[in-house]
Amino acid sequence: MSVDVKTLIHEGAELTDRALEALIPSAETVPNSIHGAMRHSTFAGGKRLRPVLAMQAAATIAGSVPRGIENLGAALEMLHTYSLIHDDLPALDNDDLRRGKPTCHVAFGEAIAILAGDALQTRAFEVLAGLECPPASTVKIIGLIANAVGTVDGMIGGQVLDIESEGKKPTPELVEAIHRAKTGALIRVSVVAGGVFAGATDEDVARLDTFGRKAGLAFQIVDDVLDMTVDSAQLGKTAGKDLATEKATWPAVYGIEQSERDAAALIEEAFAALAPYGSRADGLKSVAQYLVERKN
Amino acid sequence: MSVDVKTLIHEGAELTDRALEALIPSAETVPNSIHGAMRHSTFAGGKRLRPVLAMQAAATIAGSVPRGIENLGAALEMLHTYSLIHDDLPALDNDDLRRGKPTCHVAFGEAIAILAGDALQTRAFEVLAGLECPPASTVKIIGLIANAVGTVDGMIGGQVLDIESEGKKPTPELVEAIHRAKTGALIRVSVVAGGVFAGATDEDVARLDTFGRKAGLAFQIVDDVLDMTVDSAQLGKTAGKDLATEKATWPAVYGIEQSERDAAALIEEAFAALAPYGSRADGLKSVAQYLVERKN
Repeated sequence: MSVDVKTLIHEGAELTDRALEALIPSAETVPNSIHGAMRHSTFAGGKRLRPVLAMQAAATIAGSVPRGIENLGAALEMLHTYSLIHDDLPALDNDDLRRGKPTCHVAFGEAIAILAGDALQTRAFEVLAGLECPPASTVKIIGLIANAVGTVDGMIGGQVLDIESEGKKPTPELVEAIHRAKTGALIRVSVVAGGVFAGATDEDVARLDTFGRKAGLAFQIVDDVLDMTVDSAQLGKTAGKDLATEKATWPAVYGIEQSERDAAALIEEAFAALAPYGSRADGLKSVAQYLVERKN
Repeated sequence: MSVDVKTLIHEGAELTDRALEALIPSAETVPNSIHGAMRHSTFAGGKRLRPVLAMQAAATIAGSVPRGIENLGAALEMLHTYSLIHDDLPALDNDDLRRGKPTCHVAFGEAIAILAGDALQTRAFEVLAGLECPPASTVKIIGLIANAVGTVDGMIGGQVLDIESEGKKPTPELVEAIHRAKTGALIRVSVVAGGVFAGATDEDVARLDTFGRKAGLAFQIVDDVLDMTVDSAQLGKTAGKDLATEKATWPAVYGIEQSERDAAALIEEAFAALAPYGSRADGLKSVAQYLVERKN
């Protein structure tokens, strides 16, 4: 592939950051504490992978990254950030550190952290309602994204399965269900929503959906492996935590070597779904390849 | 007014309950705990006032209650319920009882209560994306509602102002800002969104917005007065709590008698905004009148 993937990711992340900067009220806007908290967690060094995937999926359909898609990317990142803030709360994972910085409730207190997560979800849907695309596409994108962050095979559902499974021996079915829902669904819908923004047909949507489903699972397997093999400093969070709390992870069921083979095979299958687009899918494929080969 | 207001409210609430029953996954749907928790709080005896206001606002514009508006009502009620679940959490108001029943975190634990609130917000936007009205109206409704439950003069912003003001002496400006945002914004947008669903013009929207703003403030003043004058059994929640925690309330600033006069004057002003609709607004006006005259 001829695409310089680091440039693609860097430029997509910059575009997303500028959109987030414009879309989240400043910390000087009343009431201050909530806007400070929203910004603390949104600008905590996230890689903006979901926005970049949405942009490259859109480029696969439209031939180039369409104008205005950075707001879709920003909304996806707000939803991702909201889920991290609530996951880190004392009543859930009780994490003090995220990407090497104090988590939202450590910095702002539990009440404001709960409300900052709530508000990031709300703001995401408000931003989606303002997307510069035909109203029918906007409505479709909102419906798909809400479904992907919901309880039935969506992000919250995966979080609940994860909580319910702690301390139990993980089965292959359970691990796949958690991964598909907890992190997979938002990645998958990032790809699909990017396509819809760019005018994807139903056939395009089906292909992007296959790609997003398989690539999303591959990314999560790689995450699980990294959690077991990389130390905390490199990872920017507490390493080995999944094992310590008996979380249902892919390597816990299949071992590290098989997990690495599974991730590679899933990426190949994901790429096959994009064959009809030829070189127009190079950007999307290179980002996915980069994500499964990363070392932290 | 010739409209039997109790019948109007009862029928609107029944319509809303049937929609909520169909739209929230059953407690047997995996993962069970979250759906059980969402249902526990959604079906806890709420009066469905926001849906009823949306329906009667729509009838003011369209001449009768339009088909499909019960899903808009259900979404409004999901948002209201999500805010109650999160308000009741130990880190916020720490309430064990709501409408005479255990609050969500008491019944299901704190983690599931946080996620149930999250999921009700998500499901509300998913339901709105599926409304049976033109896509441009749907997009407008979603944008208005997201704004009304957000941080800038919206529901979450009011909640944060309320938290930040505890223990401080309430000023008239602060009390009005909290009321306008915390409870007023969702009531106001219920009226406006009902109108948009029914095809309201910009002029209609402006009138309904004035009505909703004034009536919403009047309802909240009545709530504050009832909190000080009615005992817990009648109220279904812990009475006098606002005073005990030095919450910024209307009677705390103006006294009970002035508060009652203010509520009555606001309702008169709200009605004036509906004058152009003549008897078509009777349903909406009768519901508002009922709400300021209620005794619990």
